[in-house]
Amino acid sequence: MKAILPLTNLPRVVIIGGGFGGIKLAQGLKKAPFQVVMLDRHNYHTFQPLLYQVSTGGLEPDSIAFPLRKMFAGQDNFIFRIAEVSAVDPAGQVIQTSIGEIEYDYLVIATGSKTNYFGLKEVEAHAMGMKTIPESLNLRSLILQHFEQAHQETDVDDKHLLMKFVVVGGGPTGVETAGALAELKRHVLPNDYPELDLRQMEIHLVEAGDQLLGNMTDKSSEDSLAALEKLGVHVWLDTRVTGYDGRVVTTDKTDLQFDAATLIWAAGIMGNVPEGLPKSAFDRGTRLAVDAYNRVIDHPRIFAIGDAALMRAEAAWPNGHPQVAPAAMQQGTLLAANLINLHKGAPLKPFVYFDKGSMATIGRNKAVMDFGALHLKGLIAWLGWMFVHLLFLIGMRNRLVVLTNWIWSYFTYDKGNRLIIRPYQKNLPEETPAVPATSPV
Amino acid sequence: MKAILPLTNLPRVVIIGGGFGGIKLAQGLKKAPFQVVMLDRHNYHTFQPLLYQVSTGGLEPDSIAFPLRKMFAGQDNFIFRIAEVSAVDPAGQVIQTSIGEIEYDYLVIATGSKTNYFGLKEVEAHAMGMKTIPESLNLRSLILQHFEQAHQETDVDDKHLLMKFVVVGGGPTGVETAGALAELKRHVLPNDYPELDLRQMEIHLVEAGDQLLGNMTDKSSEDSLAALEKLGVHVWLDTRVTGYDGRVVTTDKTDLQFDAATLIWAAGIMGNVPEGLPKSAFDRGTRLAVDAYNRVIDHPRIFAIGDAALMRAEAAWPNGHPQVAPAAMQQGTLLAANLINLHKGAPLKPFVYFDKGSMATIGRNKAVMDFGALHLKGLIAWLGWMFVHLLFLIGMRNRLVVLTNWIWSYFTYDKGNRLIIRPYQKNLPEETPAVPATSPV
Repeated sequence: MKAILPLTNLPRVVIIGGGFGGIKLAQGLKKAPFQVVMLDRHNYHTFQPLLYQVSTGGLEPDSIAFPLRKMFAGQDNFIFRIAEVSAVDPAGQVIQTSIGEIEYDYLVIATGSKTNYFGLKEVEAHAMGMKTIPESLNLRSLILQHFEQAHQETDVDDKHLLMKFVVVGGGPTGVETAGALAELKRHVLPNDYPELDLRQMEIHLVEAGDQLLGNMTDKSSEDSLAALEKLGVHVWLDTRVTGYDGRVVTTDKTDLQFDAATLIWAAGIMGNVPEGLPKSAFDRGTRLAVDAYNRVIDHPRIFAIGDAALMRAEAAWPNGHPQVAPAAMQQGTLLAANLINLHKGAPLKPFVYFDKGSMATIGRNKAVMDFGALHLKGLIAWLGWMFVHLLFLIGMRNRLVVLTNWIWSYFTYDKGNRLIIRPYQKNLPEETPAVPATSPV
Repeated sequence: MKAILPLTNLPRVVIIGGGFGGIKLAQGLKKAPFQVVMLDRHNYHTFQPLLYQVSTGGLEPDSIAFPLRKMFAGQDNFIFRIAEVSAVDPAGQVIQTSIGEIEYDYLVIATGSKTNYFGLKEVEAHAMGMKTIPESLNLRSLILQHFEQAHQETDVDDKHLLMKFVVVGGGPTGVETAGALAELKRHVLPNDYPELDLRQMEIHLVEAGDQLLGNMTDKSSEDSLAALEKLGVHVWLDTRVTGYDGRVVTTDKTDLQFDAATLIWAAGIMGNVPEGLPKSAFDRGTRLAVDAYNRVIDHPRIFAIGDAALMRAEAAWPNGHPQVAPAAMQQGTLLAANLINLHKGAPLKPFVYFDKGSMATIGRNKAVMDFGALHLKGLIAWLGWMFVHLLFLIGMRNRLVVLTNWIWSYFTYDKGNRLIIRPYQKNLPEETPAVPATSPV
């Protein structure tokens, strides 16, 4: 079965994924002589850096998501479809999707990354990931459900277990999530749950490396550690989680384990690439090996950008670029220009990464920020963090809603509305399926 | 198994339901010598009059819901539990719930109403109800999914079918939903779906009676009919829907049927009362027969308020009061005073309904409003409608968010973010279960 797409004489660029890279690319092709087909399993772009605030009740999904159709309304050469891509067939120049087969002239894999459990199946079955809005909402529901359930628990150990959290991974996501949980414990939950002894709530942050925020400066690592410990988070460095049965978290240290009803896994990501490409096309972390023009090795019509790609061509970044939004956006923008060059027979421009620095927030008035030699912390870094996130958020309405929420939370010490709209059931799949392609009627 | 609740020497008032009636009652008992236990299957109060705006993408759930725990933070005699009540045992003075058995001294059934399909099983299986936030979100997802699916439909009839809507019931919910769909068709959907021929989108409103808004003045009925027709809604009066197989809507007129992929049922409600009370305790519409003090007939310790109750004691309302928020709130407030009187041995005060009039909105600048002899329409009624809804909405943050959304929509002709967060699957149950009572760990 073929997917139904408008017929044109223009060459077709198929972009899989409406993340940061995919949308910059599609925008860059606005006036180009291509038919641009974007596929995504959701009908919206997700602003992933703020997912942790959805998980912890600070923001609602509608303020960090933006409908892809609305984003490209008025771009005449742009076609959007909700679809899950199951396989790429480079020989046939087609992809297999949930809405049927789609032919391409150029294919761009901008599918981002997914959670990497490093083969720990038992952990995967019981841990909560945080890469999509449904996953973040599931985590939020689970946290609230555990506090509700604690009221009905007669066994004291089980009661306390429901109030214990282990966050695995000391990167920005792990640090920000642990900080947000600590603020919930301090300012929000005691008012909601007067019957519970909130001193029993514990937040553990476990990191395999010897410092937090390993990609940032030593100063940022130290500042974030100090800030988290001041908030009451227990930080365990040089510690690797080895198992989790839904109750007991084991580590590589024989004398260290945790009892916790909630384990949040932010310890690693891997390329989220559809099947069909040969092993030789991949580099480590299931990322596609690309040349300086984001072309997949040995596949002249297939490109990969962002988290799904690994480019070793730039001398300053022999191990590839960081898997962050700016890298994906810059690659998307350049690839748009290069596809136009390719079409014209003009020479392609190699990618040069402009490092915009990095940052992480820990809590109220607490953040760290590195930009080249410049290191900032505290209130100024926190304000900078908010400014940058508002700037990159898509849509004026979203910016307005997020800013309103942040100001409200700042002055009231409260967080959004703690609603369990869809109770989370552990036996359900964590990710909801894409919209059914065929009509149920 | 007994539910775990704090032990006190105070008599226990158990309130089932955190709707308008339940919260007014609990607030009225703030300083009373009772332990007040509120049970609800959700952890939030739902502002039902704006559910239709959640269904049609105008508002997000967080702005029309308010967490019950937060509402009563600081009220020392108040206990909240998420629980589903399965049965009442009047002889034993206990109720059976999903978190175990709960004893009561006084029981208040404030469970509101549920959709009444009048025994049409086939309609119930395929129609979308709109009484809860999960139901409204399901409807929103389904509407958007149908437009997405229409792109992949090769059969022209099936393609158009996906763009056809039948709203059953000409009360405020039906009128407001049909109006909101018409505005989506006019201002929002053409930008999102340039590949579809939106002229094929049809909205039918079917009402069994001979006018819309039957509970309002004739002027309001006529004005709302004219306004809906001007917006392009097809209104069918004196028409009763008799069946729906997911595709064809049949009516009591042999020559009238509709093809539509979406049927929204707003044609009736019925009392949503737990099992265990004898048939003699009920009046029509499965509402509990109550005396002038909201006491269930023959059950001195059981009360019912709001939509779940039917009181014929007030001479001006021999068929009972309208099933609207003000009636429930006024009954809740009076019952709080009467429970205190009962406890003191003081005489009880009979209920007297203060009719605050009624209103419905059709679209931008279009609403109708009746207050006694006063009838308003157009812009002034529309502004009045917004003012009253903001006033009764709970929480300053909610008011701020709703007002921001309304102002934004007014000037941009756009509606919120059209996200399909959880795709709706017709084979799933429409209502999500209450949070599991026992810990999964």
